[in-house]
Order: sequence, then structure tokens, then C-alpha cells
Amino acid sequence: MIADMTLNAFLEELASNSPAPGGGSAAAVSGALGAALISMVCRLTLGKKGYESVEEEIKTALDKSDELCKTLTSLIDEDITAFNTLMDTLKMPKETPDQKNIRNTMLQNAFRKAAESPLKIASACLETIILAKEIVNKANKNLISDIGVAAQQAYGGLESAIINVKVNLPYIKDKTYQDNMSKQIEILSVQGQNYRDDTCGEMNKQIG
Amino acid sequence: MIADMTLNAFLEELASNSPAPGGGSAAAVSGALGAALISMVCRLTLGKKGYESVEEEIKTALDKSDELCKTLTSLIDEDITAFNTLMDTLKMPKETPDQKNIRNTMLQNAFRKAAESPLKIASACLETIILAKEIVNKANKNLISDIGVAAQQAYGGLESAIINVKVNLPYIKDKTYQDNMSKQIEILSVQGQNYRDDTCGEMNKQIG
Repeated sequence: MIADMTLNAFLEELASNSPAPGGGSAAAVSGALGAALISMVCRLTLGKKGYESVEEEIKTALDKSDELCKTLTSLIDEDITAFNTLMDTLKMPKETPDQKNIRNTMLQNAFRKAAESPLKIASACLETIILAKEIVNKANKNLISDIGVAAQQAYGGLESAIINVKVNLPYIKDKTYQDNMSKQIEILSVQGQNYRDDTCGEMNKQIG
Repeated sequence: MIADMTLNAFLEELASNSPAPGGGSAAAVSGALGAALISMVCRLTLGKKGYESVEEEIKTALDKSDELCKTLTSLIDEDITAFNTLMDTLKMPKETPDQKNIRNTMLQNAFRKAAESPLKIASACLETIILAKEIVNKANKNLISDIGVAAQQAYGGLESAIINVKVNLPYIKDKTYQDNMSKQIEILSVQGQNYRDDTCGEMNKQIG
């Protein structure tokens, strides 16, 4: 698993002349950073004086953020697999009509996977931003900046993932599928931006 | 160094009930992801047919992005040190007038460091976004999405770092210093957004 690499080794691998890991992996890492920060804020709220009344909500948020962090971490690998499969499929022989047919069918599937994997990353990032919004006026006020950063990181991950959906769509021939995916990323982007702005707006009120 | 931890261990540490690493570290990691992606795009452009005329510019960009990635990685640790120093200073005795005086002076220094470290992160993130803009119409077109992601990641890092500057400013008593820092983060934010939008605008033209 990529997450078993050191951060230095991951950055080196990202910067290397191998196209994977690439932008999709960065998107998932960014979302995972956001989710981890929400977990930290929740852990530093639970059991603290003055926050007894939100205990249950914070516990629920913590379960969700821990889960989102895991999901986003595993999506780093899923995205690399989808990308590598696409690259392998592009190298398939295309001499005979039969080879062309098989390659085309497999390519269409590979492009779908390469678009669907970052769509999952974008969705998990949106859930992370929504969590940030949910706890911004409830969690430990000393950690307010970390909630804002969580929203920004998850939003950066969301927009990065959307780019990776977009770049694959033109190669998918099914127009209905294409339109459906375009609509989904449009909604994810608008919602992500709204929840991020709401979260940071509330944060700014508290920072003063 | 934090970057010697595995990504999993870092996320676990971030999510733990220890306040450091926190949002400042996440900001620096996000910027480093952006810089690393620019390095990847440059490496996959150099020596490629059709890109001979931009060879020198891409080499210069690569040197800068490799350097920015290193800088941002070392800023993860600098930010944690600044935060921990601040926490230690807050715990200093404040019984006698002398103790109060010493503590107050040291606290002012500690708050400045805690604001200046994320300011450095924000500056390095802006430089990364500017690099993305510089290469968006020059580098290998197959990697266009990675340039967009680089801009988004560095912008996420910039906004996250700015939050960490902002949250420390109210505690700094020197009004001139405060105003100066506020102006700097305002400029960084506006420039970051403009360069990100320009980069993604150019990217979208290419994706179609």
C-alpha cells in the first residue's frame, strides 16, 4: 500500500518520471489530511469541560472522520490501479479488427474506472467538508483553525479529484454516461465550495 | 523529521489527541504534493519529442519545484517546533511580576514564530502555483490534469497556511506587525486564487 511508504518516499515517487502516483493520489491524500484533522479535533473535544452536551454528536463525527480517512487512504491505491490498468490497455495490440474491437471495449471500461475512482475520492472529500461544517460551532474552540484547514484540504482534494474525472470523460463514448458524470462533478463542486465557505465563514467569526 | 514517517503513521499522528502535528503541517504537506506534481510533469516533458523548444524553461521550473518541495517538507517540522514552543511558553510560571514579564515577552516571540512559520508555507505555496501557471501551456500535454491538481493542492496549502497565520495574529500586541502580516496574507490569498484560476482556466481549454 502507498500509505506504507514514508512521506518523503511518496513525494519522491510523485515527483519522479513515472506517471503514477499522480494527481489522483495527491487528491486522495489531501482529503485524508482533512479527515484526519477532523478526527484530531473530535478527540480533543471529547471529555473536555464545557463540551458535555455535544459528546454524542462529536463521537458520531469522529467515527465518520476515521472511516473517511481510511476510505481516502485506500482510494490512493485504487486510483493508481485504475490508472495503470488504463496504461496497460492502451498498449494492447490493435493490428487486426478483432484486436481493435477487444482493445476498444477494454479501453472504454478502463476509462470509466479511471473516471469513477476520482469520483469516489471527490465524494469522500465532500463528506469530509460536510463533517467540518457540522462540528465548526460545536467542537473545541481552541482547535477552530484545524477545522478550517480540514475544510480547505478536503476541498482541495475534491477539486483535484474532479480534474481527474474531467480529463477522462472525453474518451468515454457513451454520451449518457458522460453527461451523468459531468452533472455529478458539477454538483460535488458547488456543494463542496458552499460547505467550505460556510465552514470558513463560521471559523472567521470565531477567530474574529 | 516528520517526512520520515510513513503516510499512515503521519495520518494517525495527525488524527490523534495530540495537537501537533496539526493544520500547519497539513498545509505544508499539501503544498509539497503540488510541488512534487510539477516536478513529475517537468520530468515527463524533458527529452520528449515536440518539447525541445521549452527544454530550458522546463529545466528551470524543475529546479524550482524540487527546491519548493524540499522547503515545504522542512516547513512541516518548523511549524511543529513553533507550535510546541508556543505551548511550552504558555505553561511558564506567572506568579511573580518578574515571571509575568518574562513569560509575556517570550509569549509575544512565540506567537510571532507561530504566525511566521505558516506565512513561509503560504509563500512557498504561492510560488508553486505561479510555477504551475508558468508551465501550463508549455509542458507535456498528456500531464495537463496534473498541472491543474498541482495548482489546486498548492492553493489548498496556501489557504490552510493563511488560517494558521490568522489564528495567531490576535495575540500579538504590536499593531504595526499585525497590520503588516494581515496585508501580506491578503495579498498571498488574492494572488494564489488568481494564479490558480488562470492555471485551471488554461487547463480547461486544453481538456475541452
